[in-house]
Amino acid sequence: MNMNLEETFVPFRGIKNDLEGRLRCYKQDWSGGFRAGIRILAPTTYIFFASAIPVISFGEQLERDTDGVLTAVQTLASTAICGIIHSLVGGQPLLILGVAEPTVLMYTFLFNFVKDRADLGPKLFLAWTGWVCVWTAFLLFLLAILGACSLINRFTRVAGELFGLLIAMLFMQQAIKGLVDEFRIPERENPKALQFIPSWRFSNGMFALVLSFGLLLTGLKSRKARSWRYGTGCLRGFIADYGVPLMILVWTGVSYMPGNSVPKGIPRRLFSPNPWSPGAYKNWTVIKEMLNVPFLYIIGAFIPATMIAVLYYFDHSVASQLAQQKEFNLRKPPSFHYDLLILGFLTLLCGLIGIPPANGVIPQSPMHTKSLATLKHQLLRNRLVATARKSMNQNSSLGQLYGNMQEAYQQIQTPLIYQQPAARGLNQLKDSTIQLASSMGSIDAPVDESVFDIEKEIDDLLPVEVKEQRLSNFLQALMVGGCVAAMPVLKMIPTSVLWGYFAFMAIESLPGNQFWERILLLFTAPSRRYKVLEEYHATFVETVPFKTITAFTVFQTAYLLFCFGMTWIPLAGVLFPLMIMLLVPVRQYVLPKLFKGAHLTDLDAAEYEESPALPFHLTTEIDMALSSRSFAGSGEILDEIVTRGRGEIRRMNSSKVTSSTATPIGLNSPRFSDKAYSPRVSELRREQSPRLSGKEGISPRPSKLGESSHASTSSK
Amino acid sequence: MNMNLEETFVPFRGIKNDLEGRLRCYKQDWSGGFRAGIRILAPTTYIFFASAIPVISFGEQLERDTDGVLTAVQTLASTAICGIIHSLVGGQPLLILGVAEPTVLMYTFLFNFVKDRADLGPKLFLAWTGWVCVWTAFLLFLLAILGACSLINRFTRVAGELFGLLIAMLFMQQAIKGLVDEFRIPERENPKALQFIPSWRFSNGMFALVLSFGLLLTGLKSRKARSWRYGTGCLRGFIADYGVPLMILVWTGVSYMPGNSVPKGIPRRLFSPNPWSPGAYKNWTVIKEMLNVPFLYIIGAFIPATMIAVLYYFDHSVASQLAQQKEFNLRKPPSFHYDLLILGFLTLLCGLIGIPPANGVIPQSPMHTKSLATLKHQLLRNRLVATARKSMNQNSSLGQLYGNMQEAYQQIQTPLIYQQPAARGLNQLKDSTIQLASSMGSIDAPVDESVFDIEKEIDDLLPVEVKEQRLSNFLQALMVGGCVAAMPVLKMIPTSVLWGYFAFMAIESLPGNQFWERILLLFTAPSRRYKVLEEYHATFVETVPFKTITAFTVFQTAYLLFCFGMTWIPLAGVLFPLMIMLLVPVRQYVLPKLFKGAHLTDLDAAEYEESPALPFHLTTEIDMALSSRSFAGSGEILDEIVTRGRGEIRRMNSSKVTSSTATPIGLNSPRFSDKAYSPRVSELRREQSPRLSGKEGISPRPSKLGESSHASTSSK
Repeated sequence: MNMNLEETFVPFRGIKNDLEGRLRCYKQDWSGGFRAGIRILAPTTYIFFASAIPVISFGEQLERDTDGVLTAVQTLASTAICGIIHSLVGGQPLLILGVAEPTVLMYTFLFNFVKDRADLGPKLFLAWTGWVCVWTAFLLFLLAILGACSLINRFTRVAGELFGLLIAMLFMQQAIKGLVDEFRIPERENPKALQFIPSWRFSNGMFALVLSFGLLLTGLKSRKARSWRYGTGCLRGFIADYGVPLMILVWTGVSYMPGNSVPKGIPRRLFSPNPWSPGAYKNWTVIKEMLNVPFLYIIGAFIPATMIAVLYYFDHSVASQLAQQKEFNLRKPPSFHYDLLILGFLTLLCGLIGIPPANGVIPQSPMHTKSLATLKHQLLRNRLVATARKSMNQNSSLGQLYGNMQEAYQQIQTPLIYQQPAARGLNQLKDSTIQLASSMGSIDAPVDESVFDIEKEIDDLLPVEVKEQRLSNFLQALMVGGCVAAMPVLKMIPTSVLWGYFAFMAIESLPGNQFWERILLLFTAPSRRYKVLEEYHATFVETVPFKTITAFTVFQTAYLLFCFGMTWIPLAGVLFPLMIMLLVPVRQYVLPKLFKGAHLTDLDAAEYEESPALPFHLTTEIDMALSSRSFAGSGEILDEIVTRGRGEIRRMNSSKVTSSTATPIGLNSPRFSDKAYSPRVSELRREQSPRLSGKEGISPRPSKLGESSHASTSSK
Repeated sequence: MNMNLEETFVPFRGIKNDLEGRLRCYKQDWSGGFRAGIRILAPTTYIFFASAIPVISFGEQLERDTDGVLTAVQTLASTAICGIIHSLVGGQPLLILGVAEPTVLMYTFLFNFVKDRADLGPKLFLAWTGWVCVWTAFLLFLLAILGACSLINRFTRVAGELFGLLIAMLFMQQAIKGLVDEFRIPERENPKALQFIPSWRFSNGMFALVLSFGLLLTGLKSRKARSWRYGTGCLRGFIADYGVPLMILVWTGVSYMPGNSVPKGIPRRLFSPNPWSPGAYKNWTVIKEMLNVPFLYIIGAFIPATMIAVLYYFDHSVASQLAQQKEFNLRKPPSFHYDLLILGFLTLLCGLIGIPPANGVIPQSPMHTKSLATLKHQLLRNRLVATARKSMNQNSSLGQLYGNMQEAYQQIQTPLIYQQPAARGLNQLKDSTIQLASSMGSIDAPVDESVFDIEKEIDDLLPVEVKEQRLSNFLQALMVGGCVAAMPVLKMIPTSVLWGYFAFMAIESLPGNQFWERILLLFTAPSRRYKVLEEYHATFVETVPFKTITAFTVFQTAYLLFCFGMTWIPLAGVLFPLMIMLLVPVRQYVLPKLFKGAHLTDLDAAEYEESPALPFHLTTEIDMALSSRSFAGSGEILDEIVTRGRGEIRRMNSSKVTSSTATPIGLNSPRFSDKAYSPRVSELRREQSPRLSGKEGISPRPSKLGESSHASTSSK
């Protein structure tokens, strides 16, 4: 994960850089969102459910554990307030904020500490946590100002992905535990009630199995609707975009089907007080009671505050990092320092109004980016398909077709300040078109759909791009806020549908996680490993010996299981992120002794290990690019096409990069830069689009402009 | 369905032809089965379950409807006895016999007729049905001897596939009905029992949903195990072969998981008397009572006998026909007349020992052939993969590789009398290899796996062939017989697993049914119809306008729904096959007025509509074949490769045949034959292998020898 943060700890410098970078695209953040039109609702609702449902469930957990002092109303309110503020004034709008499981665990621990003390008691619980939040905010301010986020580039893929997988495991664990509990009598309920006699309990459990698996299977299926054979494209798109909310509706409907033949309470449904019931809002005035907390406890609050601050520092940054992975080819700059500062303010605010604070959440944040990539893809695709169709109807040649598509592509690209028009996606398009043309004999012959299958073609050729804007984040946070009012409606959702949704989230977070893909690779039959190559095309599959991949993955899995085990220890569990932070020194000092440097960089690229920049020879690069890009006459490439089918054409052009010794051809970034960063390209699937780059010394991401223009020259 | 039966009604002629044809390969029917070794158990167990489970369920139905006079013991015994005899002395060993739903309906009707008559009553029920069977057998003898099965070639695809889909609908209906009944109190049980109080009934229903959907989904998944990415090839093969029995075990195991927390009887399980309980075998001596039946009733038995005879004539022949569809490229001759004669004897036997008779069943018979095609494919594949691996290790060139594979292919082909060695699959192989070689530059360069992906390559290139033998049929019938003894074990299977299995059978019977595929096509988005082309490659998709396909399919669907509706009418339901037989005149006289002849032949090829044979020009054909087969220099073909990937190469060579006006190139069968048949090739997916052909005038299938040798000449 190449974030290219400078490791300088000059106070306020990181915050200033972040602010400047994000301010420059702030207007576009909104205008771009509105320009997407109604389609923005697809990622919005997708993330709204991913955000709201766990928060409701955590709220229920918190209600049980704090004797009803905090409920789903407070967790939803916190998520909504923090989300709205972050989307308005935060740095990285891809980051989704929410009340997370670690926060819930921490608050539970604090409550257990408080409730037995005579001088605090449950009454002063929120006031005391207010002080904890004050201290936490103070620590977060310090970390942000001193540039602690510069260390983020030491959090390599290995740590981030391990954390991601751990979260997925926790979600899955929650799903399984929830389902098992459906067969049991809930703790706080009257065990003599009709719905808890053995026969109805068993009925409830079986019904829960049906509902949760129903939701999980149909939810997963609906996400793939775009590739279905049946139905119109419009319907398929709708199902893919809104399938999961739709399925929650459907399965909630199914849960009402038995009607009066089952007693009330079967299946079990969400349990939460109405926000307007008495006592549900007494937390809002907690600030008045904060001075009632004994002085020693105010000081003592510093101890849990350090833990929470470390937790948030890590959690927030990793969530942000995973939402900005290199594969997404983001164009706008990151904002780690500034976002941590904002998080400090948000924590302070939450503490003062007596609600548990929210922080950046996994897997929702990367899910958000992914759904915006889908949105951008759809927007680009629709435009290009329309253009291509029009061109074909006018009997254009391939050359003209390409020209028209290039124009359309340019039009849809947002011209950001300081950024030349992106030439990247187009080159790919052109290369492939030329290949097609040479195989057809002529570039000037009119094309028709039998030769040029528009939709497939464009789907294959479009680079990954993300619709980076603030609107979806803002709207989803607003909708979470709406949930507080909609509580009576939400309470109709059966808990078992929730468990199914938890499992769905766990599964949805897996694709794209290279750690997970390596685990799968270990179980893949040797003869089928080529399929992995076709699907993911991760560099390491080609460059690292299988034994090394195995050893590395087994090590990582053991570490993961150890972390997972830690979450089961009551108090230590809260600190499991520390275990993952421990991976940073392990990665830096231990792993290089066990694995070859070149292999390690392919398995887990780290900025600080980058080999020194090579002198940059312009002519050589163009030559190499030319020879690797020209198509005709190269038997090897033709053979590749015949062997692998067309999906590979694109990949042949893009970087099949290599251990760190070899210099990637044709897409090397200019290394004559005078800055401290030196970007790596090895885990790129496709070439990276140039990100918005500012003035020298401010731009956090390398400019790839030189490269793009070389590439377009060479392929002409 | 090109069965090429002559429509001559000379007595005994059909039977004689069938007998001669099948006798010639009788020895090979057994030796071939034994040579397959342990692998024969895969299709055997697959069909055993498909055969036994419905028969058990029909037995339970019969037990309810005949007040326990007939039970699953009798239906299993009938299926086993008829199956064993048919596999030993029957004609077509691909045909699976079993007690079918129409028989059950008919027996129920007979029982209701009998039970209220003072002079018969339930006591003489079996004796009277004995007489019915005697008359039925007599009618079947007549039909067989007079050559009624010659009419079978008027039962076109339209009738057979409609019948197949109707059976699938009935199976699915049974699955749904069974599941719904799991929520209700069964008729013959004590409604006061603990397991029938509302809460336990609801529990039972929900548990049934879990078990049946569990079986259905895992069963369907396991059938595709061969293409999984994970696990060794051996494990994957095992799961694909034995996944369904395995899943029945697994889900039966799951049904015992709640243990003592649920009352006995949840989930509901099979209910059947032990075969050694008193009264379970009183039927075997029914022949002694047959003379106690009043004379008038003996005569009157002729009326139901005609209905049953018509039913069996149709059912048995269509089952046999669907098991021998053209796509399977069978090499051994059919045996309709002789099999009908044997069916007469079996019906007589069953009647005399008081068990309901068995007849050829759908979908088990086509399922049997399909599973044997998979077996054959595996056998061929393993041999060829081993050969190819060996060649590559010896650094062979593509040419040598081809030679070695050709040799191996020949070795595994059974040299049947009167049949030249099959050159078919090999030509395909060679063509594709040559294409590959020309794209690589040289045919003499050593190949390795990066160029020649052995397993995929061979999978793609092998023609459909079926392991035609008697062993699998014999063994499965034996195992059904074993079920009678294993009744106490079988009774552990939950009924809900049965319903899941019914749904599984319904779904498994759909692929390959062109009627079904056309229905799907109607719901396919226009832009995705190319996928249908890629997958099924049915001729009609290319040659018939979409509107015509729609009209034809809608007509057929309406007819299907009408037939399905008929099955709901108590007595008329038994005669629904008559509705399907009515399709024969409709197809012959009505449809040609509504649809163009050329379209009709592509949608539903009928022998008798065949255009007169064209004079056969040897040279022209070779020229055309050459021009269509030569690869190098043809921009269009290269383009096709680039566009569609390698899977299409094979298809380009094989027959993209055309309305009946055009002569298929390069694989036309010699039409200068002096016989009455004129074979069609339009619905072939790949070229047809020559089937065993006997002397002139006896051979029921056309010899393709001439063609094979032309083809191999032209591609050299």
